[in-house]
Amino acid sequence: MAGSQDRARVRELLDSVRAAGRHALTAPEGKIVADAYGIAVPGEELARDIDEAVAYADRLGGPVVLKIVSPDVSHKTEAGGVVVGVEGASEVRAAFRRIVGNVRAYAPDARIDGVQVQELVPPGQEVIIGAVTDPTFGKVVAFGLGGVLVEVLGDITFRLAPVTADEARSMLDSIGAAEVLRGVRGAPAVDRWALAEQIQRVSRLVADFPEIAEVDLNPVIATPEGAVAADIRILLATRTAAPRRAYAREEILASMRRLMEPCSIAVIGASDEPGKIGNSVMRNLVDGGFAGEIHPVNPRAGEILGRKAYRSVVDVPGEVDVAVFAIPAASVAPALEEVGRKGVPNAVLIPSGFAETGQQALQDELVAIAERYGVRLLGPNIYGYYSTWQNLCATFCTPYDVKGGVALTSQSGGIGMAILGFARSTRTGVSAIVGLGNKSDVDEDDLLTWFAEDPHTQCVAMHLEDLKDGRAFVEAARATVPRKPVVVLKAGRTSAGARAAGSHTGALAGDDAVYDDILRQAGVIRAPGLNEMLEYARALPVLPTPKGDNVVVITGAGGSGVLLSDAIVDNGLSLMEIPPDLDAAFRAFIPPFGAAGNPVDITGGEPPSTYEATIRLGMADPRVHALVLGYWHTIVTPPMVFAELTARVVREFRDRGVVKPVVASLAGDTEVEEACAYLFGHGVVAYPYTTEKPVAALGAKYRWARAAGLLT
Amino acid sequence: MAGSQDRARVRELLDSVRAAGRHALTAPEGKIVADAYGIAVPGEELARDIDEAVAYADRLGGPVVLKIVSPDVSHKTEAGGVVVGVEGASEVRAAFRRIVGNVRAYAPDARIDGVQVQELVPPGQEVIIGAVTDPTFGKVVAFGLGGVLVEVLGDITFRLAPVTADEARSMLDSIGAAEVLRGVRGAPAVDRWALAEQIQRVSRLVADFPEIAEVDLNPVIATPEGAVAADIRILLATRTAAPRRAYAREEILASMRRLMEPCSIAVIGASDEPGKIGNSVMRNLVDGGFAGEIHPVNPRAGEILGRKAYRSVVDVPGEVDVAVFAIPAASVAPALEEVGRKGVPNAVLIPSGFAETGQQALQDELVAIAERYGVRLLGPNIYGYYSTWQNLCATFCTPYDVKGGVALTSQSGGIGMAILGFARSTRTGVSAIVGLGNKSDVDEDDLLTWFAEDPHTQCVAMHLEDLKDGRAFVEAARATVPRKPVVVLKAGRTSAGARAAGSHTGALAGDDAVYDDILRQAGVIRAPGLNEMLEYARALPVLPTPKGDNVVVITGAGGSGVLLSDAIVDNGLSLMEIPPDLDAAFRAFIPPFGAAGNPVDITGGEPPSTYEATIRLGMADPRVHALVLGYWHTIVTPPMVFAELTARVVREFRDRGVVKPVVASLAGDTEVEEACAYLFGHGVVAYPYTTEKPVAALGAKYRWARAAGLLT
Repeated sequence: MAGSQDRARVRELLDSVRAAGRHALTAPEGKIVADAYGIAVPGEELARDIDEAVAYADRLGGPVVLKIVSPDVSHKTEAGGVVVGVEGASEVRAAFRRIVGNVRAYAPDARIDGVQVQELVPPGQEVIIGAVTDPTFGKVVAFGLGGVLVEVLGDITFRLAPVTADEARSMLDSIGAAEVLRGVRGAPAVDRWALAEQIQRVSRLVADFPEIAEVDLNPVIATPEGAVAADIRILLATRTAAPRRAYAREEILASMRRLMEPCSIAVIGASDEPGKIGNSVMRNLVDGGFAGEIHPVNPRAGEILGRKAYRSVVDVPGEVDVAVFAIPAASVAPALEEVGRKGVPNAVLIPSGFAETGQQALQDELVAIAERYGVRLLGPNIYGYYSTWQNLCATFCTPYDVKGGVALTSQSGGIGMAILGFARSTRTGVSAIVGLGNKSDVDEDDLLTWFAEDPHTQCVAMHLEDLKDGRAFVEAARATVPRKPVVVLKAGRTSAGARAAGSHTGALAGDDAVYDDILRQAGVIRAPGLNEMLEYARALPVLPTPKGDNVVVITGAGGSGVLLSDAIVDNGLSLMEIPPDLDAAFRAFIPPFGAAGNPVDITGGEPPSTYEATIRLGMADPRVHALVLGYWHTIVTPPMVFAELTARVVREFRDRGVVKPVVASLAGDTEVEEACAYLFGHGVVAYPYTTEKPVAALGAKYRWARAAGLLT
Repeated sequence: MAGSQDRARVRELLDSVRAAGRHALTAPEGKIVADAYGIAVPGEELARDIDEAVAYADRLGGPVVLKIVSPDVSHKTEAGGVVVGVEGASEVRAAFRRIVGNVRAYAPDARIDGVQVQELVPPGQEVIIGAVTDPTFGKVVAFGLGGVLVEVLGDITFRLAPVTADEARSMLDSIGAAEVLRGVRGAPAVDRWALAEQIQRVSRLVADFPEIAEVDLNPVIATPEGAVAADIRILLATRTAAPRRAYAREEILASMRRLMEPCSIAVIGASDEPGKIGNSVMRNLVDGGFAGEIHPVNPRAGEILGRKAYRSVVDVPGEVDVAVFAIPAASVAPALEEVGRKGVPNAVLIPSGFAETGQQALQDELVAIAERYGVRLLGPNIYGYYSTWQNLCATFCTPYDVKGGVALTSQSGGIGMAILGFARSTRTGVSAIVGLGNKSDVDEDDLLTWFAEDPHTQCVAMHLEDLKDGRAFVEAARATVPRKPVVVLKAGRTSAGARAAGSHTGALAGDDAVYDDILRQAGVIRAPGLNEMLEYARALPVLPTPKGDNVVVITGAGGSGVLLSDAIVDNGLSLMEIPPDLDAAFRAFIPPFGAAGNPVDITGGEPPSTYEATIRLGMADPRVHALVLGYWHTIVTPPMVFAELTARVVREFRDRGVVKPVVASLAGDTEVEEACAYLFGHGVVAYPYTTEKPVAALGAKYRWARAAGLLT
């Protein structure tokens, strides 16, 4: 994009600006940067005096804009330093005098380098292209319409910089007022290619020069013929963040494998005394059925739960994969030293009393020890973790043994307990539950790197309040999403919520608009709330991946059909336009007053055979890609009869290799609850008393399938 | 607003337009209407020739706008019939010629009455004020910003016409870009009073003249000094809807009282044969414990369930309040005749096979019979109804006996079954469940009129797909809302959903944007989905009404605190700014590393005494108006311990007359489910595994309290 000579020119310029102790580039400096990166700006010259201004205006031809050039005036319009649409020598002279006079009055001590004489940009659609440095994600590029839309409605979209051409084009469609760019009320469409090109160039600029904190092209005038930035504003950072220690992918996988599939575990602070955390952890490891070695470590040695205890972890025979800490905060550091000396790759730090209680120094000490020995730290301030396929419950909470496809993580212990209770109540099949707590070291991207590889994990669901390194997370998510869905509940979405996050973890919560766009860019499914995260986690591994967009609703209750249709539109899904032959096929099974079309309304009071025949049609027709069923409880077709026939038909087709997602909403008396549990256990995502939840689960699966590139 | 002379002038004008067979008023005609209603429009004259145009332009002074006047050209700009900003005799002459030439070319056969010479409106904020005739609500007035905002983003708001001054002002705040009217980027605020005045005048105009189908003031130019409509467009209706038969309030109450509190019920088609609907209805009436008289009616007479059966309802001794029909559709009409002759005021029509299956004529016949005898019809095509405080289950579904404060209605039988199952599963206290089905007669406004008076009903929740008479519903809702909350689930919200509604009931689904605004205007709480409607119905009667806006979160899990804060903002609630003395009082009970402020984070692992002390503080302080609790399951404070202490404290304060809404989110293992059920039973709205639901319920209560005028 910019050649090495161009980059060298910008490097030299930025260095000189910083050497001069300035953070804001002047307009002529901005023009140099823009030219180096091919960012289209109007032709312009810097006039030192009135006569130069007249000469330049004459050379540019047509009306011009005059703008003050001063390192001390950054808001030129406020200072009266801009005059637009000046033409001819006498007008240029008058405007030059007026500008200089205004600025002298506004800021008497400002150094005035001259007046910029600039081509007048043609009328067109005003847009904003910019870049900022986000505390979580680093350089991000922004795009929005100019004027009130951006400011009042916050109609702006963000992407990680640099962006590809496709990503840049996607930004044009991501704003609420996207249609305006395509031309409304007979206005012509703007040049989308040119706009995307400008976005890409700005994103490349900030990626190449980390010291650029902010770029504003505002406004950019977009016309059918191109896009020209009427003004460019570039700010340099006053300081840059310290780089975070990074692990190579192979290092992460090696330690994570030993954490999640350990052969030998030491419990630091194991205890025989009921009520102690070190006792709960021991009991859960033993009762959970972990088949590897479990070594209690306790200064009093002896035996604990019938196992030989060691005074120190260094005395434990053989290699140890995981040391679980169940001792008070103050004792952790010396014990961690021993864990390091023993060469244990993973320390699971259950104790609290570190950064979350203001003891940042104590936590920093642990990190320093861990880095010295190459020990990875999970926590501190966590409930521990579960790896169900290993029968591993390294936690003081109760064991959990329903093996399945979803890995769940939580930053908060309370949310971890909600995960456990929900999973147990719904018998959600789980591959892992991991507490992350203070995230002194291991965080979401480490776990995601592992879960992407873990064959037991088919879906990952994460509760988080902040990301230590947004870019590392996006990288891990992008590597995972093509293989399995990643659901994220980002807490602290709203400003009040973000404030609470601040007081809870001391972490600076990112701007939610940036989080939202970047998580979507990474292909992550964002859950709107805790219950949705849990329901998606339960449903996504159960649902097969759809092969196309055609959703068909088959319902016994017309009323459910209407609500299911509402939910389908709300979730961005498409009600299939039923082809005439399929419509006729449905009609053959339903009463004459039933409504074919979509929803297929089989009407209430129909026998099991009508449900079965129509579900078979939907399963068999290759043009149908997903089924949404609406069941109405009647004596003719009781809930369990419906559940069993639906499960049987779905399995029969699956056995023949025909796999489609099927979800169901059951309206009826309390027997529908048992029927839903049965259906869920047989591969059909079903809920009682709601038309929204089954469709939301299907919608989440579709969002993932699109992000994974499995649907076009 | 408009005097009788003004109205007479408009009446005369509209009559003459209709007499001429026209539906669109010309600009000069629009000006006459505007002047009569005090709608500010620019000064203008109709020039018949060039010389008149020059003279008028001179008289108006300053630049003017010239516009073609032709009954045959409604899109003047497209026809080249408008020139803006003409000043001086020669410009006016040239513009006049150009316009007439353009229009001749555009529509050679158009009659040209002349050219309108109009004052040029000053620059300002463009807005749109209009009025349309909605199929459900009749005349509604609309307001939005001009330009792309209205068209692309649909940023427009509606109210029933006519509006009060307060309602008109509320419209200015109801659009997404409301801030623009207050002035952004240093622009001055517009004259809100003048804008509201224009809205009110337009709304009055359409209310006074039902034949006006549409009014468009587009654009209205709003400045700090006023608001002037640059263009006014008025269209007349081609046909008007037939008026619907209306019952007086006292008539409605009299028949509803006998329906919901009957002394004597006849079952038409009662049967001894299990599996028949007439048997199920009889059994449910008897088994449900209804204390009044139950009279089986069956042509074979004899005894049914041990009660004497009659050949005809006319043979039943004494007065009958309700006749429940459990016979095939074809037999209903003659039986209804007999019901009419007996003087029974209410017929409950369970059978299907009427309008919903295309048998509109059969249904119309019933309505005609009913009107002749003054019988009110519930249904047809319904499951029946429950009136729990009467132990009355007049339905073929299973009985329901948990007495309580919510009355639920549903248009669809499937949704009715979901209501029953949900209520039974959650032990929701119910006053009534009513199926409305085809709504051939009794509809939501009749029921609402009764429920408003019914002392057992504290909250009304209604599922509906359409409203037969939107204005009657709004009137009933407005009368009810000051006394009790009204929750509405409007199905067919989205365009796909609305299409399904059309095929289900044959009713024209209204535009959802209009529904949304008007339901809000009526003070109704709109539930976003079925599950929300059910949860609000369960929670609202349990929650006391808040006395102010200050919400305090007390949480044992910081993670829940963040999510609860998110939910509070999402639901339009306010996290209280905790005063220093209260903050200090909280701090006295929580660990030094806990976060006071709001949320009050008492930290995990605290004993019951910490929960109790902090909840007591929140209950006792009169500046706190509502509590949101976040519980974290630990061994130190198990779920039922938390539930019992919370219920005890809340009751203790209630006994002392201190009543505040308290909601709770319980994060923990499955024991939290029992704890939530206990709390719900003791006046605390509590949910497991979700931070969203308890706050959504509190948010619904607040929305009602505001609509009812109980909060300022």
